[in-house]
Amino acid sequence: MTDLKLQVIPLGGLGEFGMNITAIRYGEDIIVVDCGMMFPDAELLGVDLVMPDLTFLKENQAQVRAVILTHGHEDHIGAVPYFLSEIDVPVYGTAFTLALVERRLEEYDLEKEPRLIKVKPKQAIAVGPFKIEFIHVTHSIVSAVALAITTPLGVIIHTGDFKVDPTPTDNELFDLHTLADYGKRGVLLLLSDSTNSDRPGYTESERAVRPRMEEVFSRSENRILVSCFSSSIHRIQLVLDLAEEYGRRVAVIGRSMVSVTEIAHAHGLLSIPDGILLRPQDVMGLAREKVAILVSGTQGEPMSALSRVAVDNHKHISVDKGDTVVLSSRIIPGNEKAIFRMIDHMSRRGADVMYGSMNPPLHVSGHGSVEEMKLVLNLVRPRYFMPIHGEYRQLTKHARLAEHLRFAGLEETFIMDTGDVLEFDHHGARKAGKVTVGHVCIDSGSVEDVVQEMVIRDRRLLSEDGIVLPIIAINRNTGKLESPPEIVMRGFQTGEDGPAFLDAARQLVIKTLEGSNHEEKTDWGVMKEKIRADLKRHIVKQTSKRPLIMPVILEV
Amino acid sequence: MTDLKLQVIPLGGLGEFGMNITAIRYGEDIIVVDCGMMFPDAELLGVDLVMPDLTFLKENQAQVRAVILTHGHEDHIGAVPYFLSEIDVPVYGTAFTLALVERRLEEYDLEKEPRLIKVKPKQAIAVGPFKIEFIHVTHSIVSAVALAITTPLGVIIHTGDFKVDPTPTDNELFDLHTLADYGKRGVLLLLSDSTNSDRPGYTESERAVRPRMEEVFSRSENRILVSCFSSSIHRIQLVLDLAEEYGRRVAVIGRSMVSVTEIAHAHGLLSIPDGILLRPQDVMGLAREKVAILVSGTQGEPMSALSRVAVDNHKHISVDKGDTVVLSSRIIPGNEKAIFRMIDHMSRRGADVMYGSMNPPLHVSGHGSVEEMKLVLNLVRPRYFMPIHGEYRQLTKHARLAEHLRFAGLEETFIMDTGDVLEFDHHGARKAGKVTVGHVCIDSGSVEDVVQEMVIRDRRLLSEDGIVLPIIAINRNTGKLESPPEIVMRGFQTGEDGPAFLDAARQLVIKTLEGSNHEEKTDWGVMKEKIRADLKRHIVKQTSKRPLIMPVILEV
Repeated sequence: MTDLKLQVIPLGGLGEFGMNITAIRYGEDIIVVDCGMMFPDAELLGVDLVMPDLTFLKENQAQVRAVILTHGHEDHIGAVPYFLSEIDVPVYGTAFTLALVERRLEEYDLEKEPRLIKVKPKQAIAVGPFKIEFIHVTHSIVSAVALAITTPLGVIIHTGDFKVDPTPTDNELFDLHTLADYGKRGVLLLLSDSTNSDRPGYTESERAVRPRMEEVFSRSENRILVSCFSSSIHRIQLVLDLAEEYGRRVAVIGRSMVSVTEIAHAHGLLSIPDGILLRPQDVMGLAREKVAILVSGTQGEPMSALSRVAVDNHKHISVDKGDTVVLSSRIIPGNEKAIFRMIDHMSRRGADVMYGSMNPPLHVSGHGSVEEMKLVLNLVRPRYFMPIHGEYRQLTKHARLAEHLRFAGLEETFIMDTGDVLEFDHHGARKAGKVTVGHVCIDSGSVEDVVQEMVIRDRRLLSEDGIVLPIIAINRNTGKLESPPEIVMRGFQTGEDGPAFLDAARQLVIKTLEGSNHEEKTDWGVMKEKIRADLKRHIVKQTSKRPLIMPVILEV
Repeated sequence: MTDLKLQVIPLGGLGEFGMNITAIRYGEDIIVVDCGMMFPDAELLGVDLVMPDLTFLKENQAQVRAVILTHGHEDHIGAVPYFLSEIDVPVYGTAFTLALVERRLEEYDLEKEPRLIKVKPKQAIAVGPFKIEFIHVTHSIVSAVALAITTPLGVIIHTGDFKVDPTPTDNELFDLHTLADYGKRGVLLLLSDSTNSDRPGYTESERAVRPRMEEVFSRSENRILVSCFSSSIHRIQLVLDLAEEYGRRVAVIGRSMVSVTEIAHAHGLLSIPDGILLRPQDVMGLAREKVAILVSGTQGEPMSALSRVAVDNHKHISVDKGDTVVLSSRIIPGNEKAIFRMIDHMSRRGADVMYGSMNPPLHVSGHGSVEEMKLVLNLVRPRYFMPIHGEYRQLTKHARLAEHLRFAGLEETFIMDTGDVLEFDHHGARKAGKVTVGHVCIDSGSVEDVVQEMVIRDRRLLSEDGIVLPIIAINRNTGKLESPPEIVMRGFQTGEDGPAFLDAARQLVIKTLEGSNHEEKTDWGVMKEKIRADLKRHIVKQTSKRPLIMPVILEV
């Protein structure tokens, strides 16, 4: 019998929303499960993306053997390029998941060719002392898996994200049998998705969205716009199917929607009826009752396709009286204001905007509710349980749930924070210290529809390039500037020609404002983002510096 | 027959959330229905309150006869002090509504004694050419009324805020009979609350909250903290009743909760069992299972009592393992992040925090859903209909609802914006131009628990005093300053001793940071608010100026 210890170390995603990444170490071998990013809070000004701090893995670089991915959502794969730029190991995942990783990798310029290794559900691989079996689960994205990781000290089940959909639209059921098998043979530790632990009951099947969507297609006499997360292949398939049935052609709008649709189609995961696709530039030329539009931007992101359509600032598409707009997605907390503003813009144009809770629903969650969590706990019946994926309140609720079940054999539940180490040996499990974790903030340098080189820089470096605060006083009613914009700079060197540089920056802000329509001008979120993007392009070009740019808008 | 015209002019609350105020003019007589304020967007930096622009009423000051209030929520009465400081007319409302107005008036120093005139449901008053009858409605606040305003051109029904609660906890039913009477005799125009026009079905009765709350009281073995809106007298009564039943004493925490409770009690609207109240300073000395605490701050406002309890920074109260915290309120869009952060802080302390949707519910809305709106439309059956109280999307949905009902006699529905004029004469109704409307931003000068003089100043004046931007780089993990704070000033004159002033300001920011605990330091919302409040006090004292203060926190 060996004295080696097994450690499970969440490096992101616990006590925070997004950025899921977990290290599992046995002796001197580490595997990393998932490698996600998060989108920054509005409060985190001047930053595009947030990645996990990889200090712990870099310090133990020689031990890291592989990254294992559960599915292709950004909070599970978004930091893979950043990871590979630091640590070169093979990446395992399903074909579709890896295709989404490749799409992200195209924006980077890595020194070494990435090693992406495709796996399939029911397949098992060996990495160092670990045997890893992939188990198909149902989720809002296709090709999602859970992991059964056999270690010398016992089996770890990592659910990834899941719901238990009894009637998935692609008929690919959650492989509960394999999960049950592991449970029967004995599981050391369960790591299970806590996202919806505050929702009672069962999450509705993806199929539940069809009746509402069908009603829209059957009664609408004008254009139909459907917005969903671009990775919701099931939802996109539904729109394509209904469009064919009701004699409409479909335009796909928005960079992420277009590319994910192409990838899913190339992998045989999306069936596109012949001749149904319509080029965006042809939409306005076709009869209104013959068109459906799939458009990205459900969260009201200021520069997204749907936000631009809402303020009539999209190249090809506009919303008119009688059109129906369906927001088939949830509202991510923090985005309410931006989303409701977008809905109001479209309502003012006369569109019937469908959003929020309805019965039948416009959207169903991809995460299981309390009853599904109980099912997984009862099937796996682990000795130890660690809720993952969620803020502290969700982890706590999931932990309580497990303790209420009191199934035979559960010895202890660990509510862990990102960075806490859970250690196992032959005597049992315990928390054993902390490792370095944190957030690395990224300035992407990319603007929607203009793919540029993505620059990985941390926030500390960014602020070494200084800070630029454009201060703009806008009259809310007229949308006009009340005084010339002020540009405040700190720690940012413009070179010799300071006053001229400032003046050019000021002119640029004025130009950005003048180039915006009334609705944009009175929408602070949009204006801040436009000013930031335009100034950034200008400053990088003029000085090759990347200061933090934080527009301050005063309403007067 | 006269040629005089009747005009209905929303001056706030349409196409925006809050700040409800409507002018009704016949010939040369104007009455104003409600006079509310709104809370500013997080994006509207450096502002405490937002009031309606009263330009239109000031220009027609000689015609303004009275303000008529429907109920005591801030979005209906909050701007009365500001209004009276500009235009001195009598204010009519129920006794409780006026008591809440008086509480606000105490913070101001008006030149003339306000004329507050109490009315009761079923009473009618005459103001110029208008006869106004008050009709009892059910809502989340007690003593709420709708108005039947008889004009020479016909009757206008203004619902105020309402739900149709069939089993109100105080047994005071919505006076549907009077509403039906008016409907039978003929109504020219209905103005009806649109807040919940995107919610199908019926809103549950206030009584529906009891089972869940009773469950909390019956099973909790430790302290119980209940947070609700301070004006929710029904909810406060429920907590007092359950506390008595289950042998707990009740402490009331938070300035607004204390004062509204006192007012309701003084008006006989709240029955407080003898000896049940407990002083906040005695809470921690009593056995945990003998205490219930009513606390304000459901929206996670950074300086509120509950937010301070959550980060263990309240004078008298703390939350410990096993305590139950009930958030008996809705989440106002835009506040999600702050609320969830507060919940996480309390979960980390081991409290069981109950929030969000549950069945039975923790909270029910005070506004009627679609079926209740239909009932009112069918009872009143007006010739013209104008949805009020809501963003454009809610007004649109309410308008569609009315058109789908197709009851006999509905000639036209008007979706109006704040500032639009709806004009009536013997020929009918039409939109007729716009009047000046807008937002007046207020710097209150008050900090929770320290009532200071409230200064009415508009944003333009504020920005004439300049702008102060403290820039602070905090390390998210350690909560420590990464570099000395920067203070950027624009258009703000510090007097002769500029460098010393700057240095003092810098020291003050450092002191504020050092005086905060780890949880506060890593909670940007709290830190911004604390720095703003402390710097404001310092700057006003030193310079008598009131610049806009907008802390910028960089996470590094």
